[in-house]
Amino acid sequence: MIETPYLLFLGDAPDPLAAKVAQGIKDWRPDFALGQFRMEGCNADMGLPDMSLTEARDAGCKTLVIGVANRGGVISQAWKKVLVTALEEGFDLASGLHNLLRDEPDLVAVAKATGRSLHDVRVPSVNYPIANGEKRRGKRCLAVGTDCSVGKMYTALCMEREMVARGMKATFRATGQTGILITGDGVPLDAVVADFMAGSVEWLTPDNDPDHWDLIEGQGSLFHVSYSGVTMALIHGGQPDALILSHEPTRSHMRGLPGYDLPSLEDLRDTALAMARVANPACQVVGVSINTAALSNAVAERYCAEVEERMGLPTVDPYRHGAGRLVTALAAI
Amino acid sequence: MIETPYLLFLGDAPDPLAAKVAQGIKDWRPDFALGQFRMEGCNADMGLPDMSLTEARDAGCKTLVIGVANRGGVISQAWKKVLVTALEEGFDLASGLHNLLRDEPDLVAVAKATGRSLHDVRVPSVNYPIANGEKRRGKRCLAVGTDCSVGKMYTALCMEREMVARGMKATFRATGQTGILITGDGVPLDAVVADFMAGSVEWLTPDNDPDHWDLIEGQGSLFHVSYSGVTMALIHGGQPDALILSHEPTRSHMRGLPGYDLPSLEDLRDTALAMARVANPACQVVGVSINTAALSNAVAERYCAEVEERMGLPTVDPYRHGAGRLVTALAAI
Repeated sequence: MIETPYLLFLGDAPDPLAAKVAQGIKDWRPDFALGQFRMEGCNADMGLPDMSLTEARDAGCKTLVIGVANRGGVISQAWKKVLVTALEEGFDLASGLHNLLRDEPDLVAVAKATGRSLHDVRVPSVNYPIANGEKRRGKRCLAVGTDCSVGKMYTALCMEREMVARGMKATFRATGQTGILITGDGVPLDAVVADFMAGSVEWLTPDNDPDHWDLIEGQGSLFHVSYSGVTMALIHGGQPDALILSHEPTRSHMRGLPGYDLPSLEDLRDTALAMARVANPACQVVGVSINTAALSNAVAERYCAEVEERMGLPTVDPYRHGAGRLVTALAAI
Repeated sequence: MIETPYLLFLGDAPDPLAAKVAQGIKDWRPDFALGQFRMEGCNADMGLPDMSLTEARDAGCKTLVIGVANRGGVISQAWKKVLVTALEEGFDLASGLHNLLRDEPDLVAVAKATGRSLHDVRVPSVNYPIANGEKRRGKRCLAVGTDCSVGKMYTALCMEREMVARGMKATFRATGQTGILITGDGVPLDAVVADFMAGSVEWLTPDNDPDHWDLIEGQGSLFHVSYSGVTMALIHGGQPDALILSHEPTRSHMRGLPGYDLPSLEDLRDTALAMARVANPACQVVGVSINTAALSNAVAERYCAEVEERMGLPTVDPYRHGAGRLVTALAAI
């Protein structure tokens, strides 16, 4: 569990896209994001107050979150200076970078000397159990995609926000690095050892109130040969009561797999539902989430209307149109 | 790669079942198994020559393979004495135990001093790639099960033996600890990190002659919620041309999951084939393998005949009846 609130480290981000972790935290957990720390040459701006480390500490920030992808896969000396000072000033550090904080001897030494924590959310910190398949109380919703990176995380976060606004009990459950940094907690599923994948998802979504919903962050796709095993473990470990089908309509092939066509939404529905019912015979598909970022307003609306007509399920881009109709469908089951 | 031939260490095995790894090596790779090493109180016997370490060395053995499950999860002092002496006598050690050889400081120290290798086949020793899904040359066969532990490994080994006897090009590809110790090579799939599961299977079954068959050792089941993700990665990473359906007819529920019914062979066929065709549209189900160990001869034959009639596929217990009909079906595609 990463201590909040955060100071978001934007470093020397070459462009706004490089700071998408910081953007996610600011968009989805604004209460956690008190300020930003930018270095010379930074081309990203979250619109948050620029703070020095001392100012951030005085404002109550507990953790410096690296909200930016680093260049070249190494933590530069320029970053190091800030990170070391942050530890000395009393901040924990949190990072989803491939090059781990714990692999940097100077950061480890300073963290030890100052009693601060280094959170590398890319690697698991828990010994997860093997899944036991026992039915848990409370309800769970999972977004499954025709492909990777089609908006499953944003769908879950949009739904959580709408549900909380309606006074429903709902918790986003992060299964990826960005989701974990957004919420401060979760399972880095793609880094879990095979035998414990489904068990880690059970651990993440434990018994809860009967009217509580976990919104589980999806990963991969049953139809993506590189990552389908991860998706399968989410479906069986999460034992969802509800599935949302997620799709991005402009892909010409599966992400990273030229020659692999996307499945139809019908194929996704039938396959994912059959697999989900192994763990939860009551599971239903309740709606479709379309990532329309690449479409104009008019085209996006027409596309969603066509899918809704074809599939007989409420179909929206939850980020563009709001998640209200998906949540209403969820509340009805 | 573990050096052969082996001296099989049976230790103080309380009963024959405790030595089932040794039994597997003796059954499937008799050329690798030159002798056995038994301690006082050993109640297992492979029918191999009992050898001292010196005798085994003189006979040409390269590796002492721990062919027995240890009691209580620790390597006892009595075992240690033999293992240390074996290293000093010039043997490598190989083990699939949960408690790793490499976690024993005395073994590590002696191995280093003597220049010998410690093979813990329970943990991966390779940095596997992420699967790229590219079509590989050569052919691949995978057994998929209605449940875990229904005879998938034995099915593949029986088929390999039959194919080699017919002069076909065939290689058993181990994906579990026992299979790796039997063959000296493979991927411990249940210990691979999630993102690299399918890639490790691609790595294990690379490009080959057009008429060469990999017989891939199956793991888990698409219908077993604890391990289905591992099975899915095998199906997509293995891109099989042929599937064998495996079943054990006396199970009352999924292994370790009371309350979970087994799927029908029809459900298994339809689900596994649809998933396999994502990676290899030409994939076919070619036969059914029944583990009849718990049935009498007459009941076993009747059961196989009934399944064959129902499914329209050659149906045998390959260990009991031979794998000939499965291999003939494989050769026909």
